[in-house]
Amino acid sequence: MSRFAKTPKPPYYAVIFTSERTEAEQGYGQMADKMVELAFQQPGFLGVESVRDGSGLGITVSYWESLEAIRNWKENAAHKAAQEKGKSIWYKRFALRVCKVERDHFFEM
Amino acid sequence: MSRFAKTPKPPYYAVIFTSERTEAEQGYGQMADKMVELAFQQPGFLGVESVRDGSGLGITVSYWESLEAIRNWKENAAHKAAQEKGKSIWYKRFALRVCKVERDHFFEM
Repeated sequence: MSRFAKTPKPPYYAVIFTSERTEAEQGYGQMADKMVELAFQQPGFLGVESVRDGSGLGITVSYWESLEAIRNWKENAAHKAAQEKGKSIWYKRFALRVCKVERDHFFEM
Repeated sequence: MSRFAKTPKPPYYAVIFTSERTEAEQGYGQMADKMVELAFQQPGFLGVESVRDGSGLGITVSYWESLEAIRNWKENAAHKAAQEKGKSIWYKRFALRVCKVERDHFFEM
């Protein structure tokens, strides 16, 4: 699977999640995979791009059709449980930004 | 220096740059550092968050006060030269998205 999201013509929405992990594993990898799988089943989900480096800093950008789709995902029960564990165990720090994508541009060699 | 950007209250703008590197080094690291240094000198620049993993996939998000600030940076002569080398040497593929940040949320343990 390509690690680039295939998004439609703008406008659409993006959630930029920048995070710094703790050292604690405690099921993190499994939960992260499960959340991506679950996100793909959400109405209005368009795709995701995600990178984490060796120092534990990560950026995940998920793309959505509408603010309503983002709101529904935020309120999803399994996702809410993951968010709680994220704050108590997995993340030292994070920033979450909800954006409207107004313009995009793609390049391939 | 924190690798999280200190951004003001929304609205402001974000440029999400997702990229896959080639194997070619050819001054990439030096140029990337120089571009960040130069971006910090641009009017309207608010900060940057950047991660690249071992596979060569990276996400860099830069934050800006206005679309005009983004346009000026795009047209900056040194940056234009770097963009050209990016397409001919350093990047296999990239996606660039210009967004308006409407809402944000921060967490610290």
